[in-house]
Amino acid sequence: MTTAHSATQSPFRAIDLIRKKRDGGALSSDEIAYLVQGCTSGDIPDYQMAAWLMAVVLRGMTREETAALTHSMLHSGEVLDLSFLPAKKVDKHSTGGVGDKTSLVLAPLVAAGGLYVPMISGRGLGHTGGTLDKLESIPGFRVDLSVSEFHRVLKACGACMIGQTEKIAPADRKLYALRDVTGTVESPYLICASIMSKKLAEGTDALVLDVKTGSGAFMKKEEDAVFLAELMVKTGEGMGKQMAALITDMNQPLGRMVGNALEVQECIEVLHGGGPADLRGLCLDLAAWMFFLGGASRTVADGKILAARFIASGQAFDRFRQMVELQGGDIGAIDDPSRLPSVAHRVDVPSSQAGYVHSILCEQVGTACVVLGGGRERKEDSVDPAVGIVVHKKICDAVSVGESLCTIHCHSDAQASRAKTLLQDSYRIAAEPPAHQPALVHRVIYKGEY
Amino acid sequence: MTTAHSATQSPFRAIDLIRKKRDGGALSSDEIAYLVQGCTSGDIPDYQMAAWLMAVVLRGMTREETAALTHSMLHSGEVLDLSFLPAKKVDKHSTGGVGDKTSLVLAPLVAAGGLYVPMISGRGLGHTGGTLDKLESIPGFRVDLSVSEFHRVLKACGACMIGQTEKIAPADRKLYALRDVTGTVESPYLICASIMSKKLAEGTDALVLDVKTGSGAFMKKEEDAVFLAELMVKTGEGMGKQMAALITDMNQPLGRMVGNALEVQECIEVLHGGGPADLRGLCLDLAAWMFFLGGASRTVADGKILAARFIASGQAFDRFRQMVELQGGDIGAIDDPSRLPSVAHRVDVPSSQAGYVHSILCEQVGTACVVLGGGRERKEDSVDPAVGIVVHKKICDAVSVGESLCTIHCHSDAQASRAKTLLQDSYRIAAEPPAHQPALVHRVIYKGEY
Repeated sequence: MTTAHSATQSPFRAIDLIRKKRDGGALSSDEIAYLVQGCTSGDIPDYQMAAWLMAVVLRGMTREETAALTHSMLHSGEVLDLSFLPAKKVDKHSTGGVGDKTSLVLAPLVAAGGLYVPMISGRGLGHTGGTLDKLESIPGFRVDLSVSEFHRVLKACGACMIGQTEKIAPADRKLYALRDVTGTVESPYLICASIMSKKLAEGTDALVLDVKTGSGAFMKKEEDAVFLAELMVKTGEGMGKQMAALITDMNQPLGRMVGNALEVQECIEVLHGGGPADLRGLCLDLAAWMFFLGGASRTVADGKILAARFIASGQAFDRFRQMVELQGGDIGAIDDPSRLPSVAHRVDVPSSQAGYVHSILCEQVGTACVVLGGGRERKEDSVDPAVGIVVHKKICDAVSVGESLCTIHCHSDAQASRAKTLLQDSYRIAAEPPAHQPALVHRVIYKGEY
Repeated sequence: MTTAHSATQSPFRAIDLIRKKRDGGALSSDEIAYLVQGCTSGDIPDYQMAAWLMAVVLRGMTREETAALTHSMLHSGEVLDLSFLPAKKVDKHSTGGVGDKTSLVLAPLVAAGGLYVPMISGRGLGHTGGTLDKLESIPGFRVDLSVSEFHRVLKACGACMIGQTEKIAPADRKLYALRDVTGTVESPYLICASIMSKKLAEGTDALVLDVKTGSGAFMKKEEDAVFLAELMVKTGEGMGKQMAALITDMNQPLGRMVGNALEVQECIEVLHGGGPADLRGLCLDLAAWMFFLGGASRTVADGKILAARFIASGQAFDRFRQMVELQGGDIGAIDDPSRLPSVAHRVDVPSSQAGYVHSILCEQVGTACVVLGGGRERKEDSVDPAVGIVVHKKICDAVSVGESLCTIHCHSDAQASRAKTLLQDSYRIAAEPPAHQPALVHRVIYKGEY
């Protein structure tokens, strides 16, 4: 086994940089750039990158190293130039949850307010859903637009939602694939660089982070969520972006729908001024921050009034309809959501106890949806847009014996059996109601007054 | 990137075992066996092993894990069966140093006492010399014997010294190559498993470890040497072997000769009853322990008397001569060491100060020999048997200005220049003599009375 040498003579050797991190040292930005470039070009073999990644997981990184890693990954590919657009570009990123569908509401809503939302999203992995999978449940909707198509849609309706292209942050694709198989996903520094390198490549001016915490989030502990949020906010600010992070609750599914077409349907309800209170509330909060950071409102409170107004006027829904049409989607299914993919079969999940819902193992609800085929266990799996779960009982709700906790949308009883067990086991029911409802927004991380 | 699956269905996945170690957990012996087998067969890719190795370096291992790793690596290949030999088999292993040549004395000396010494040795790497390189400076000497030749030589003269074959501990070869390029060499657990798996594959009953500490050793700090020694002793004992470890001094070269043929010449002096006091003393100490662990003497002190007697009687030298002959070496060069490879050119390294030698940067002396071509910087380098360094001044010695600290044996002045600077810079000379000589044996690690 020999170490590959890059064609151009480099002052660094991967082995020395691995050792430096192993021994708790901090790498310079040139050293980090050498690793990221070598990994992307293949000059540095995967086994050396894997050893370095594990050393990072266990030794951590300084703020400066995290910024340098983000910078190198961002510039490993194309950085979109959206300076031709006449207003501020604003985006939102969520760390992922169950029933977490706000992007579909936010992009048209914030565009209705005159800002541009150039949104590059991901697919579901693990127990969480993905924005691209949800969008693709709209017949004909294309997420694989070229850069020029992306520009055209953005210009025309103010919002465009696509997937990561080959050209955006190739270092992240390479590193993420390696982290996935080497137990090195769970590092706030690496997560920060991965998210921020992709989001900054969009050419956005401002970014609102929705960092989830609770039983359905990747970060179960609030302190971990806060740590990651602060890291991302500082990293983005260091790159001249307007940044804010909301630490939000993921101890139960957001809204009532879990599953691709079901979630699109629920988003349409919100855009029509309806939908469940928690989902509607979080959409307004996030839109308010996007307006505020994008300079469209003086305060966050003003931003919230603005957001509510664009929903009430129907402008947000119109933008959504326009975006779907421009991206090839069937607007008939938007105007009449019963035309979205659906299944005829329903299986209720009855409660075996009477009392109040105390807690929900929310990750297990997400897994139940994956098991139904609504998500993917491996990257190469395809997704069934029609299946899913409609949640009837949430934390604090009263429930009687035999009453339905949730309803499974599926193709047959047999298909539902594993999901049914998972769902039944995910509810904790007690005689007394819990002391309080979980707060939707646990904390806000922002540098100034709002 | 996908994880390879082994042909036979395994209950384990490498990713889970990497995560377990990353989070500080202890792996079961089955889990470790799965990793070692998968690494050896290639079913587990290098990048997963590299991540696991880095997690081991930073998280450590329990005694049980270290024993399981040693066991799996040992049984990844052939384990020699020497039960046909009519007496105990004893070996010695050194962690490596400068001028560390005791193996060449010990093998024939202990064989002269009626025990068998089946010695599988290594080549020099880094600043340290290797037994195989020293032996090969004897014209014709073969270290690549087959197992049946190894048996025949052992049976005939009681000692045989060869290199690691393809069939011995293949997992160690694979893992060592990977550790070398991923910054994961420096872990006492991995070092222990690597050394012990090879040594136990020899079929030895007892093993004396010479664990070096000081400026010329891999473990500069005595506490690190003691930790490794205790780990190896416990691991060997757990496998039913008689074990002892001596923590010995490597703050200056052992003896006066550094370089392959020069070191053979010095060993012949010791086998004739001469040689420098420190080298002779350490050979007697180590031989005493080998006799004691092999049951040839009642105490270590008795073993030392025995060793001195076999040297004085000429029996040790006769065994050496016999072994060299059986392994194809030119006994003419043993009987007349002036016939060993040598160079005509000499370069003295004069002292620029008067006073006493306080310390020597011993690793630098080893590097000086490598720079001359007497060792290898990379595995594929060849070695010049004739070059080397003769050390005149050691710690506590008085020295005047211009007096020679050591003499370089080389081909030309030009060739010597870098080595000369290294050697000159490695000496620390002060006006007063140091408070005391470094002890040869710092500590003994053994479970009982001796």
